[in-house]
Amino acid sequence: MSTLETLKAELDGLQIEDNPQIVKQKSRDFFWYSPVLKHQLENVSAELVVTPKTEDEIVQVLKACYAHDVAVTTRGAGTGNYGQAMPLAGGVILNLAEMNKVKEIRPGVVVAEAGAIISTIDDECRAHSGQELRLHPSTYRTATIGGFIAGGSGGVGSINWGGLRDAGNVIRLRVLTMEAEPRVLEMKGEDLQKVMHAYGTNGVITEVEMPLTASYDWVDVLVGFDAFMDSVHFADALGNQDGLLLKEIAPIAAPVPHDYFLRHQKFIRKDQSVVVCMVAPFAMDAFAAFVGRNSEASILYRSDTADEGVKKGLPPAYELAWNHTTLRGLRVDPNVTYLQVLYPYPNQVEKVRTMVELLGDEVPAHLEYVRFDGKVTCFGLPIVRYSSEDRLNEIIKLHEDNGCPIFNPHRYTLEEGGMKQTDAVQLAFKKEADPKGLLNPGKMIAWEDPSYDYSSEKLFLFPGLQTG
Amino acid sequence: MSTLETLKAELDGLQIEDNPQIVKQKSRDFFWYSPVLKHQLENVSAELVVTPKTEDEIVQVLKACYAHDVAVTTRGAGTGNYGQAMPLAGGVILNLAEMNKVKEIRPGVVVAEAGAIISTIDDECRAHSGQELRLHPSTYRTATIGGFIAGGSGGVGSINWGGLRDAGNVIRLRVLTMEAEPRVLEMKGEDLQKVMHAYGTNGVITEVEMPLTASYDWVDVLVGFDAFMDSVHFADALGNQDGLLLKEIAPIAAPVPHDYFLRHQKFIRKDQSVVVCMVAPFAMDAFAAFVGRNSEASILYRSDTADEGVKKGLPPAYELAWNHTTLRGLRVDPNVTYLQVLYPYPNQVEKVRTMVELLGDEVPAHLEYVRFDGKVTCFGLPIVRYSSEDRLNEIIKLHEDNGCPIFNPHRYTLEEGGMKQTDAVQLAFKKEADPKGLLNPGKMIAWEDPSYDYSSEKLFLFPGLQTG
Repeated sequence: MSTLETLKAELDGLQIEDNPQIVKQKSRDFFWYSPVLKHQLENVSAELVVTPKTEDEIVQVLKACYAHDVAVTTRGAGTGNYGQAMPLAGGVILNLAEMNKVKEIRPGVVVAEAGAIISTIDDECRAHSGQELRLHPSTYRTATIGGFIAGGSGGVGSINWGGLRDAGNVIRLRVLTMEAEPRVLEMKGEDLQKVMHAYGTNGVITEVEMPLTASYDWVDVLVGFDAFMDSVHFADALGNQDGLLLKEIAPIAAPVPHDYFLRHQKFIRKDQSVVVCMVAPFAMDAFAAFVGRNSEASILYRSDTADEGVKKGLPPAYELAWNHTTLRGLRVDPNVTYLQVLYPYPNQVEKVRTMVELLGDEVPAHLEYVRFDGKVTCFGLPIVRYSSEDRLNEIIKLHEDNGCPIFNPHRYTLEEGGMKQTDAVQLAFKKEADPKGLLNPGKMIAWEDPSYDYSSEKLFLFPGLQTG
Repeated sequence: MSTLETLKAELDGLQIEDNPQIVKQKSRDFFWYSPVLKHQLENVSAELVVTPKTEDEIVQVLKACYAHDVAVTTRGAGTGNYGQAMPLAGGVILNLAEMNKVKEIRPGVVVAEAGAIISTIDDECRAHSGQELRLHPSTYRTATIGGFIAGGSGGVGSINWGGLRDAGNVIRLRVLTMEAEPRVLEMKGEDLQKVMHAYGTNGVITEVEMPLTASYDWVDVLVGFDAFMDSVHFADALGNQDGLLLKEIAPIAAPVPHDYFLRHQKFIRKDQSVVVCMVAPFAMDAFAAFVGRNSEASILYRSDTADEGVKKGLPPAYELAWNHTTLRGLRVDPNVTYLQVLYPYPNQVEKVRTMVELLGDEVPAHLEYVRFDGKVTCFGLPIVRYSSEDRLNEIIKLHEDNGCPIFNPHRYTLEEGGMKQTDAVQLAFKKEADPKGLLNPGKMIAWEDPSYDYSSEKLFLFPGLQTG
């Protein structure tokens, strides 16, 4: 009996999928935003998808896979863009989609299973007590909370709360280890950084406890500008208005809003840059006054005064922002891709101007205003009109040479996509919690190749992919 | 019949007080925090206190006073420290204490009459839907919302929301003008700055609409340090933690906490400086982890784990902060007073160090961390061990010479206590809304003496006080 057959026998009674086509489909995340990853990962597939319904069932899967040295790649909804959930070594996809219960809601706190859909959590918290999560990705309506914590960094709401990495944005994680007898760990405070944004390489998050904030009927607003840099100055000043409650501020350069936001196209001229905003309803008078002080700014659309029929045909503002900007671009032009850029405070506006002047319409700007270490600044998720991998690397180098670090979404490893160095805390915890290295293999260079030289400018290629 | 008798006859049926001793008592605010104002204003009194119960009654008072050229000084609870509510020209005190209804609560919004006590508004909002006001002074349990808007600037909550002046922190004010036929104005957006922080010199605020935020069972925490500057670095870093929800961060230099916080004294050594914090309950694990990273910091007290008996005997943390620090000092040592200092960002920590080194225990530091134009920085409300007015002025000059502007709480005019220049918007609105200059006379230099030279270093003295 093959390992796979043995495993299936041992997991009898659990929800298992082994039809290769379905397994391959369930093995995919949104890596295909990147033409580089698309090429590298297109043939990656697990052999089995297991969909547990309880923590006990997860323990059963982990024990069996540990015993038989089978790789386990944990998956939420597979909405990550860095190939986070791609099972490079095959084996088992641990699909947490059925671990989706909201277990407890109290003032400021929700406890949910890791596979709960983010918007579903919010729906329940809103109905329960007018609360919602602080942060969510633009894939709000499909992404899971566990996947967001394991593979995401921030998103809508980061203008108020910073990123997931910031202390206080996750309260507690319940984590299973990958050992002969998996342990259940409750992680809080300093411990959280061991497993957050580790792509599930050193533990399986089964339950999360997250802070909530007040929920409002957010008003979607598009503010138009003739000149992109005016929109940046506007957004920068807006983000620094301490009393104006917004949940999203994203300047996007022409012609992206007109060309890619098809259902909003009627509000936007081709040469208009736009700031996508979500504003608290009771802040709209003050917001309109603020817009009125900027002679370059005009409100193109606001959902609170829009005709119900018009409004119904439009996606929510957060589905124009973050990686949905790129997604909408890909739907119109399959040749575009994107980058993730940090424009360091306090020079963010000047850095943006420099990159816009250098790269023009080859790299139309898309900024996301956030709080970062207490300051209001912006990340970039510019659209890249892709021509070749060499040119993409040149564009990356141009950013770095101009003091704008890139979080490279064309790399599937934690380190290359992130800070380009070993995360000692995550590595140490992997040694303890996944001694056989079976969890999401190939994603942590520090584990796979401790002597890897990050300054070599060479691509890290997981051995399993070298023949792929 | 004297003017006063005529007025009383015309206001027959309203709640009127004319017993001189009670009128004098009801004419006083907290000006006596300042030995300078104490000397100047101790004999100030109105002639009549009228306590209307409805807006119609206020209109009746204003019409009658306008007809007879009687000054009207509107008053909430009289908890201001700049002599805001002192009736320099006598006349009528318009006491809004009975205009105290909470009229409407909805998500993010409360509508209340101007005389509503701030903590009462919060009690009702909490019970209604787990909400509370964004900002409140340390006189939370006595101050009125209208008085706070007319005479205050910020307070507890300013670490998240900035000050009252910031767009969005007041939604709407309903204002009566002082004319033959008083008009009712609904002010929103840009209009709000006409009457906010104008000490009631250009209109009578009768109703307010304020933004709400989520209410929590805030945890009071005292964090102790051996060195004051360590407490400043801690507070500065804490304020920049985007994911850690706090409502108050106030570093206070030894020996103030031990010597003046008598009921907390048992937790504090005499040589210990303290950071007074209010922390969201669900943030306590992350907060404790943050404290743990600072070897100089130790938690002296936290209300969430304190014995109920111990907790019951203690005032809330906000009554150790803002001007309650000074008040507690005055109770122990009637010779102390205070200043209000701005330490400009981004040099706030170094400016604090400079002033502490220059002035030592003559001016023990007390900082309040706030958001100011989008940045986390601090105001100072240092204790001053008062010796003479000359020395006080030297201390003020020392601050200004070192780039730390003073909002002088030893002056009763808007301009001298504030930005030392004419507020053209407030002045223009006074011309329109109070053409006879009957509202709170003597507080707006721009009205009283348009040619006043702010650089003269001379004190502005309201003519009515020159013989006082």
